[in-house]
Amino acid sequence: MDAIASRPVVTAFEWVPPFARGLVRDLRVRWALEEIGAPYRAELLDARSPRPAEYLQRQPFDQVPAFRTAGLDIFETGAILLHLGESDERLLPAAGQARWTAISWLFAALNSVEPVIQRLASYDLFNADAPWMPAAREAALAPCRQKLMRVSNALEGREWLADEFSIADITMITVLEILRHTDLVAEYPVLAAYKKRGEARPAFRRALDAQFADFTEEPAA
Amino acid sequence: MDAIASRPVVTAFEWVPPFARGLVRDLRVRWALEEIGAPYRAELLDARSPRPAEYLQRQPFDQVPAFRTAGLDIFETGAILLHLGESDERLLPAAGQARWTAISWLFAALNSVEPVIQRLASYDLFNADAPWMPAAREAALAPCRQKLMRVSNALEGREWLADEFSIADITMITVLEILRHTDLVAEYPVLAAYKKRGEARPAFRRALDAQFADFTEEPAA
Repeated sequence: MDAIASRPVVTAFEWVPPFARGLVRDLRVRWALEEIGAPYRAELLDARSPRPAEYLQRQPFDQVPAFRTAGLDIFETGAILLHLGESDERLLPAAGQARWTAISWLFAALNSVEPVIQRLASYDLFNADAPWMPAAREAALAPCRQKLMRVSNALEGREWLADEFSIADITMITVLEILRHTDLVAEYPVLAAYKKRGEARPAFRRALDAQFADFTEEPAA
Repeated sequence: MDAIASRPVVTAFEWVPPFARGLVRDLRVRWALEEIGAPYRAELLDARSPRPAEYLQRQPFDQVPAFRTAGLDIFETGAILLHLGESDERLLPAAGQARWTAISWLFAALNSVEPVIQRLASYDLFNADAPWMPAAREAALAPCRQKLMRVSNALEGREWLADEFSIADITMITVLEILRHTDLVAEYPVLAAYKKRGEARPAFRRALDAQFADFTEEPAA
């Protein structure tokens, strides 16, 4: 079998505006794959028009990433990371409390932390000129800081969320990156150091480079 | 060993205001436990003051539910449901595409659908009198409808998200319930029928009754 054709496939966008580069969620999957040295193929889709109708069978929200491997179709970053984690203990401990602590933090990053962060980012990136925005943003700031404080407290004296590096850290660190246009993470030195530690991993650098390398220079006409 | 003391423990609140009853997330875990007939013990916490500092070891965001079973501590509803799913195929198929479709939808409910719904609900429930609220709410409505439409389309011709009933349905149906103060779900007849189908399950009724039975009648002084 052709070695490239048999690789796992991750869908990604061939172009996104600069404010979104480094934030598109395929980065999370690429990072996990780089951590375990698993070759993959990026299937590039057009972000500026709806994907072909068949794509909804693989990704019902018409987003990226979708993942295809060994006859399995998986969507949602959290599910894809869990699948990769189950294949390799460098991403997720195989059993016991260590496994469930990492899985608890994986869900926490996606359901307790990302929503408050994403809400703030969406005000800043998509509603910047709306007259109601400053007041709405102000109301969203305290809940966001509260979650950041909780994560920071939990990380006190720890290198990673579940002691060993895991898919929970890949997710939490890329969630925190959504705040890169603000100084919020810097308000929590433990959190800022944690994020820096994660982004210093060679696998993260390779994943980020790969995402950027797949963007075309210019929007297609 | 004392049969009750050895049961899994779910933390819940002893009292919440009426607008939150039936929405507190321990309902999701109770529902899953009722589906498999697993006895459990609810550990009731005070919602109106911070929990004891030790509780943060079990639930770093000071929320409910936390789950304790056979020496394992798990937090985040999604993680607890996944754990229960791995213990019983009536909640999650054991392997293959069926397992990963259900897990994909579990994450979709928590990371793609709940955030847009929760944002709308938080405007309505916590910012109802803010002068900026109507305009901010208006901006949040289209993304919310778009996700509802996607879920509705995916359910077309299906009884449950992953064909067989699973933890994905427990999560999605309780996420949709967050919109109960609106007519949004009713705009999508497929979705409304799906929600009704889920809530007609005896295990759902038992779980809801148990949550309500654990609320004290009056706020403690």
